[in-house]
Amino acid sequence: MSAALLDGKKLANEIQSALKSEIEKLKAERCFPGLTVILVGNNPASEIYVKMKNKTAAELGINSKTIVLPADTSQNKLLAIIDDLNNDPTVHAILVQLPLSGHIDEQVVINSINPLKDVDGFHPINRGKLLIGEDTFVPCTPLGVQELLLRNYIDPSGKHVVIVGRSKIVGLPLATMLIQKKEGANSTVTVCHTGTKNLGHFTRQADILIAAIGRAEIVKGDMVKEGAVVVDVGVNRIEDPRSEKGYRLVGDVEFNSVSQKVAAITPVPGGVGPMTIAMLISNTVKAAKQFLRK
Amino acid sequence: MSAALLDGKKLANEIQSALKSEIEKLKAERCFPGLTVILVGNNPASEIYVKMKNKTAAELGINSKTIVLPADTSQNKLLAIIDDLNNDPTVHAILVQLPLSGHIDEQVVINSINPLKDVDGFHPINRGKLLIGEDTFVPCTPLGVQELLLRNYIDPSGKHVVIVGRSKIVGLPLATMLIQKKEGANSTVTVCHTGTKNLGHFTRQADILIAAIGRAEIVKGDMVKEGAVVVDVGVNRIEDPRSEKGYRLVGDVEFNSVSQKVAAITPVPGGVGPMTIAMLISNTVKAAKQFLRK
Repeated sequence: MSAALLDGKKLANEIQSALKSEIEKLKAERCFPGLTVILVGNNPASEIYVKMKNKTAAELGINSKTIVLPADTSQNKLLAIIDDLNNDPTVHAILVQLPLSGHIDEQVVINSINPLKDVDGFHPINRGKLLIGEDTFVPCTPLGVQELLLRNYIDPSGKHVVIVGRSKIVGLPLATMLIQKKEGANSTVTVCHTGTKNLGHFTRQADILIAAIGRAEIVKGDMVKEGAVVVDVGVNRIEDPRSEKGYRLVGDVEFNSVSQKVAAITPVPGGVGPMTIAMLISNTVKAAKQFLRK
Repeated sequence: MSAALLDGKKLANEIQSALKSEIEKLKAERCFPGLTVILVGNNPASEIYVKMKNKTAAELGINSKTIVLPADTSQNKLLAIIDDLNNDPTVHAILVQLPLSGHIDEQVVINSINPLKDVDGFHPINRGKLLIGEDTFVPCTPLGVQELLLRNYIDPSGKHVVIVGRSKIVGLPLATMLIQKKEGANSTVTVCHTGTKNLGHFTRQADILIAAIGRAEIVKGDMVKEGAVVVDVGVNRIEDPRSEKGYRLVGDVEFNSVSQKVAAITPVPGGVGPMTIAMLISNTVKAAKQFLRK
């Protein structure tokens, strides 16, 4: 392996140390940043994510709560809880863990969150603001990807960024961010997806390749350019009889073959994942500050 | 010239005939579609656009009004007028002609329009809905480009669409539309702009090239692929002493050299321009119908 490892865990720790100081300052001003995470049902991956979010938030001094609701919670019940949180002045940040079960309309739920408390940045008005370059809550994973690049002195400006995946959570917002005429952006952006013919034709052109399509190891060594930077957002379980759990986690990138060719790459786990949580804390601090300023 | 001409004028007339029938049906239900266009100042290009919009709307039976305000109109005065229109049940559609003069914050004005009357689709919430694939008002020029392709049996699905330009009015919304996993979209999309290095490298790969950067004839014959489809959104004045007016209108594409190589191309004028107006009428009819259904 010749590639430099883009260590998201280490970086997230650094960012979180700085955030901890900010949180202490806010508390000295009698502002106690409050984050409430809502978890519906018992999706095992969601349970792990929510636990990690809460643990980190609590460690940094955030007034962090989780509301766990049974899988059969009605949409109206969920909307009523969000309404209470919207009106609760001690709650600056609300996060509804996705995905929700099929009987609930996810978008109706997202639309019901006060945009000023929407630290996931999924409310349409916050998405629209992001698109036109206005200050808003930037979705945590795309923001984490951008921070990971910039703090490793990788400037996307003028570079060809190829994003594999058009999800509402990663691919689409990341594209809208990196196209902007702004510092830390200004990239020529190509978005590929399941409808793309000859994916390799596009990925091989990437100066910066961002894989976020949720397919295990779909990006192989012959699909990347020598010297490229690769950010792997994927987290996929694949069977592994040698592992105790019977599976292991891999990204959307075939790490062994790709890391031979590229200049820098994120590990999975330990790359984008920890950055996502750090950005959630950052957005929560931002929400609390905005509340203080009002 | 070997390319087929994508005749936007003819197509817009066809679309407008169909819209005329729809408008007549609405009137039979006692719904009189109302569009109000606000023009601030006397930008000559804006005056021409507003005149064309109103003329077409009136011809098709829309209750069309223009409010012309002096260049020094205050932002508050403008906001008060929009507030009145938001509350006027006879007005289904509001369009503020852009650009506005420097003393007015364009985005504040756009944000003040009732999203249900925002037929330009520029309100952040409508932009956000477009990004996540929800039904909304799609900005008129990007919608016109998509319709122009589809009604000429050019399906963007699976094609590499290269958009030159990242404006809020054309490039950005068009990219978000064509990336969607939907009929009439599902393209691999590359967005180029003033920060792109080696523009020709990208434009030469386009199956469908959309030029919307506002630079006269920047796309030359050696920058396109044989057999590509080219949509020219640009309208630029260039000096022409042979012309009576002393200038003529050209697109962002050098028509003569490009039309030798490609399979199809829009003329300027008579390509995207008329489609934009047809889409404004279409959005106005949509706004009136939504009002009727409530």
